[in-house]
Amino acid sequence: MKEHDLIKTIIPYFKQGPDIVTGPGDDCAVIDVGTEKLMLAAVDQIAGGIHYIEDCDGIDKAAAKLLKRNLSDIAAMGGVPSYALVTVSATLSDADSLLFFKALAAEAEKYGVSICGGDICASAKGASVFTLSILGWVEKAKLCLRSTAKPGDLIYVTGCFGNSFKSRHHLNFIPRLEEAQFLAGNFTHAMIDVSDGLLADLGHMLELSKLGAILDTSRIRLRAGATLESALGEGEDYELIFAVAPHRAAELEKSWPFPTELSRIGSFSEEFQGLAYDSSGINLCEKIRGGFDHFDS
Amino acid sequence: MKEHDLIKTIIPYFKQGPDIVTGPGDDCAVIDVGTEKLMLAAVDQIAGGIHYIEDCDGIDKAAAKLLKRNLSDIAAMGGVPSYALVTVSATLSDADSLLFFKALAAEAEKYGVSICGGDICASAKGASVFTLSILGWVEKAKLCLRSTAKPGDLIYVTGCFGNSFKSRHHLNFIPRLEEAQFLAGNFTHAMIDVSDGLLADLGHMLELSKLGAILDTSRIRLRAGATLESALGEGEDYELIFAVAPHRAAELEKSWPFPTELSRIGSFSEEFQGLAYDSSGINLCEKIRGGFDHFDS
Repeated sequence: MKEHDLIKTIIPYFKQGPDIVTGPGDDCAVIDVGTEKLMLAAVDQIAGGIHYIEDCDGIDKAAAKLLKRNLSDIAAMGGVPSYALVTVSATLSDADSLLFFKALAAEAEKYGVSICGGDICASAKGASVFTLSILGWVEKAKLCLRSTAKPGDLIYVTGCFGNSFKSRHHLNFIPRLEEAQFLAGNFTHAMIDVSDGLLADLGHMLELSKLGAILDTSRIRLRAGATLESALGEGEDYELIFAVAPHRAAELEKSWPFPTELSRIGSFSEEFQGLAYDSSGINLCEKIRGGFDHFDS
Repeated sequence: MKEHDLIKTIIPYFKQGPDIVTGPGDDCAVIDVGTEKLMLAAVDQIAGGIHYIEDCDGIDKAAAKLLKRNLSDIAAMGGVPSYALVTVSATLSDADSLLFFKALAAEAEKYGVSICGGDICASAKGASVFTLSILGWVEKAKLCLRSTAKPGDLIYVTGCFGNSFKSRHHLNFIPRLEEAQFLAGNFTHAMIDVSDGLLADLGHMLELSKLGAILDTSRIRLRAGATLESALGEGEDYELIFAVAPHRAAELEKSWPFPTELSRIGSFSEEFQGLAYDSSGINLCEKIRGGFDHFDS
């Protein structure tokens, strides 16, 4: 079973208490802990040989990536990160251990995250697995979900796509926290970050919003060295996809204050639920799914 | 570097924000999120070949252990568990994946825990690493720390010790949530759970409370098949060690309402900080550390 299918199968087993506003299936869980803001909670992991290459990427880069992947999830909900817990299961030298934790601490301080706990254990088979659980806060009016795009909304994205691995963007990216804070609750209430791939993550929005999409693929900005196929399918871009009501588009484009690229790449439709077509009528999901299955993990 | 030494080295790098009441170094982090109760946060992991044996223990037992280890940490702070996030990095069959998640879901429901998010990824080297981050709540007056034992306090423990692996206690234990709720804020404000080993975990209390201990080792109840050495050193007992003021001891013993064994095994002293002696003057830390180093991980 693929990861996505497995997750869909198991989610119904997990009973959610009354204070869980949004359970598994979005970028973060949303918890009403009785404060003015809602709590966000997410976890992500990186494994050596899968999310970074042990002999070449540097354990400090891996540490930063581990935190930033989680920050990207918080950003996508319209939130601000606050606390984190970290685990290490690996057989690291003392020097690498210190390098990992110092890099993680420096990155956490930069983003105002308190890493307030963790656990370290050995690795049975020489594998390296690192996880980070993040907690954050979102103003109720700013909460963005995957499920709240509306028919006719325009599809916008930040940044460029494709060729993330070779270009080392997957290590060096900056999570779009500031951009998301500007957008959330004002220009959008429906957002997701791109980790699995532009088309796969748009697909998660389509599925949960019960919509389809028509994309003008010529408007998708390609990272240097990227093809359209890699931009649509490879993933690890850590950009934002978000829905904007058509009457707000001009104002958004005029007031956008960031150097980060902003692109309108299509629109949501009531037709062909769960699927994305390009403007010449090609089913992009079919076209890309064939080519990029090996990026699923 | 040993895990404990590594942790002591890295903790100062992690800057804690003003809402972190207790950061790394206790069973849970304690966060003041602005509610009447304090939030507790902890993470623990199990690795195949280290915390369970892949071909014999059953992935469902491993799933339950993963949750219960974390519940034991919440118990030790005087808290009640609420929410959790889970990660899996493993190459499991579909059947084993379902078995793992169903068992985890059933166990979580039993303890009123909402597993509200998670992440699944492949394993690069056939290793199996599972983590669970737990969040819970503790009434401010009930908060128990490792650092708050006082000279002259009596040392009590719940349950039996030793031979946890062979007896499969390490899989079948029941976290001492009810016992801890009865004790916390009433009979004790200083508590820890025993995962590393009775002597090692008592040692964590001694170090942080800046005290020593004198133990009457004849009062330590042994699990069937256990020697005193395994009871002191092996770990994975998931029992509680806690400090009780001498004038409250009689009332505690009289009012203890649980079938779980309750044993007074010694007292805290201002002498020989960080060390535990038995009543005949033998330094137990030296005696056991020699023999049980291979249980560190």
